[in-house]
This record gives sequence, C-alpha cells and structure tokens, in this order.
Amino acid sequence: MEFNRHDIARMIDSSIVRPEVDRAELERFAQSVKEYRYIGAHVLPYFVAELNELLSGDEDILIGTGIGFPFGNNRTEVKTLEARRALADGARELDMVINVSALLSRRLGYVTDEIKALKDIAGDRVLKVILEVHWLSDDDIKRGCQCVIQGGADFVKTATGHTPTGATPENIALLKSIVGDEVKIKASGGVRSLAGLLELYKLGARRFGVGAASAVSIMQECDAPPETGMEVR
Amino acid sequence: MEFNRHDIARMIDSSIVRPEVDRAELERFAQSVKEYRYIGAHVLPYFVAELNELLSGDEDILIGTGIGFPFGNNRTEVKTLEARRALADGARELDMVINVSALLSRRLGYVTDEIKALKDIAGDRVLKVILEVHWLSDDDIKRGCQCVIQGGADFVKTATGHTPTGATPENIALLKSIVGDEVKIKASGGVRSLAGLLELYKLGARRFGVGAASAVSIMQECDAPPETGMEVR
Repeated sequence: MEFNRHDIARMIDSSIVRPEVDRAELERFAQSVKEYRYIGAHVLPYFVAELNELLSGDEDILIGTGIGFPFGNNRTEVKTLEARRALADGARELDMVINVSALLSRRLGYVTDEIKALKDIAGDRVLKVILEVHWLSDDDIKRGCQCVIQGGADFVKTATGHTPTGATPENIALLKSIVGDEVKIKASGGVRSLAGLLELYKLGARRFGVGAASAVSIMQECDAPPETGMEVR
Repeated sequence: MEFNRHDIARMIDSSIVRPEVDRAELERFAQSVKEYRYIGAHVLPYFVAELNELLSGDEDILIGTGIGFPFGNNRTEVKTLEARRALADGARELDMVINVSALLSRRLGYVTDEIKALKDIAGDRVLKVILEVHWLSDDDIKRGCQCVIQGGADFVKTATGHTPTGATPENIALLKSIVGDEVKIKASGGVRSLAGLLELYKLGARRFGVGAASAVSIMQECDAPPETGMEVR
C-alpha cells in the first residue's frame, strides 16, 4: 500500500478542541490547516463560525465540531440544537459524544434514538459517534457499536482526546471486529506519529483525529517516513 | 468560629459530574446525599430529572447541574436551552462554565452578556459561574470576575474539577481580593479534606464543590475534626 503526503493529510481531522484556545490560536490553526490541507479541521462549537470565515473558499477542508463534547451526557434536545447551530455556522461534519451514562445504564434504545436524531439533522453530512472507550468494557463497546450502526451514523470514533486512552491498536482491532464495513472507524485519542497512524490504518481505521501540533509533526514525518509495511512518497 | 456537622454539610455541593456515572451510581449518590444532607447535589444534565425523582420530598437539598460543562465554549443559545431544560427537570442551582475562549480573547462584553442571559433564566435561583482558573492568568481571573459581577451571577466558582488545579488557597485569596462581597465564592477542584475546606472558608469561600467520595470523608472527619483555628462540634 502506498500513500503520498496528500493521502495522509486527507485522512486527518486536525483539531484544537481545548477550552483554552483563543482567537490568536484559532488563526494560527487556520493557517496551518490551509498549508497542510487536512480533510478535517475541528474546533469547539463557539469557534465554528469564525473558522468558517477564516477558511472561506477552502471547499475541500471540512470543518467539524463536537456535539455534547466532551462528556456527552446532555439532553438530546440540547445536542440537537447544538448540531443545528453548528451546521448553520458552517460545520460540515459532526462528532457527537455518545451518552456514556445511558450506554453504561444499558438504555440502548435511548442511545440509538439520540444518534438517529443527530443523523436526521446531519443528513448527507458525516456524523461520527464518539464512544469514549476509556470508560467502556469490551461488552459496552459492542453495545455502543450496535447503537452507532442502528442509529445510522457514518463513523464510530474512539475518544474525545480528553481521556487517558483511546486509539490503541487493541481498541481499533476490537472496533473493526465488531463493525466490519457497516460504519467507518475514526481513531482518536493518542494518534501522534505517522507510524502510529499507519499501524491503526492497517487495523481498519480510516480517519484520524489528531491534535494540531501532532498533525503538523505527522505531516513533517511524511518527508522522512518511518519503516513500516506501507510507503509514504 | 464554630461549625457543627450540619453547618459543614450545608456548605457542600456534593457532586458526581463524571461522564461514566451510571444509574446504579446515581442511586447510591442519592442515598448518600439524603444521609449527609449536603446543601447541593450535582449531576450532569442527563441525570437531573432522575435525581429529582430520587430526592423527591427533600426540599432542602438543592439539585445542581453544569451548563456548558465542562468546556464552556458552546453557543449561548445552547447554554440557555440547557439551563431552561435543567430547571424544568428539577435543578435549583445552575453552575455554568464561562466561555473560556471568549474570555481569553478579551470579548468581555460577550462573556458578560452570556452570564446575564443565564441569570435571566435562573431568576431567583442561584447562578454560579465557573471560571476554570487553571487556564487563566491573574489578570484573566480579574477580567472574568468583572464579567461575573456585571452579569449579575451569585457566585464565582474556581473550577469544574476536571483540570489539574482549582481551589488553591492562592486562588481563593485572589478571588476574594477581587470580588469582595459583590458575589460569593465557591471553591471547587481540589477540596478533599475538612482542614482544606476550613482553610478556604477562612480565605472567603462560602460554598464547596466536592466529589461525592471526598464529601463523605469530609463528613466523617467532622466526627474527629483536625486541629484548626475553627472548631467543629
């Protein structure tokens, strides 16, 4: 398998989804996104409209944001309003956090219905569902994946990046064994190197949520790629 | 100064504001709250209605929840809907997270207006504003406090409990030097012992956000209080 630099960039959602990001950092992020041409650029909801303005004209960079981010335990009507507003502000992909409490309480109908409600709003646009696997047993992950599939989402995603674990090879392999080709897998929470990204790609991940600084260093690694089974030209 | 066990309980907002809380833990929490009779019992928005049911009849325990919790960088209209819904679900105090990005970007009018909008919804009920001091310089804290005062909130609060620092003596002393008696101070993020609580009380804090396990251990300490300038009967 061979990737070029651009292929790698087109699998990365670069993100600055931390509360302490200010306008100056948002502007630097937008510059970096324009330079490296990631497929996705993710900010918290407050900054979606401003990022959209900063990236105006860049149709092939998809602005994304978190819905119910990062805890997920909001009322469904709050999440749906947040989703509608994010789309109105210019978001083109939505990464919702599953209701972890409802999942752990085995309210799978509720969890599925919430995902459906968000997918109804997203329409043709991509909806990713963050499981926040750090809190989940393998069985919880299985149950969560069934909700994601039945809810009609496009991706299952490991983590918000705000828990200690997320995109481990074990988690990606587990997700792939559960979802097969029914939904895609986004690896996030711990993707910090090109070798790590490629390892997770082999295991089935097709999108990578990466913090802005790590995303830049991955792109720089593309110029001097590590030894792996895949080549980066 | 002398406090009895009940006085201490009536200064504590006991909380389980973590995403991985399930229904079983919610029920144990409700039992513990009924036993110790804290002034406040805080859960994430999803569980407010259920906690209200579990505590029905306990008029002197105030259910609280986080609004825009824990990052704060949501659109104002999302926060206001979340607040309305929380009150409808039975919340009697609202702990909103300030828009940290807006504060750091010096959009003080925006920050103040958002607090005002939430206070309009809270009405006679207590609105606390979480600054999340971990991300702020002393000057940012000063600016944030001015927004809290001008926005008409009832309390300024240090932290969500999800950052490394919060209720340090230095932070409480700084807040007190800024806000005087204009708003009250809620110390949260690191209050884990009776001695710690009493030290922050002396510095001006009048409410304490404490994780459920630490709240229980503080109540147990009241039976064998530490050596301090204050007595706990």
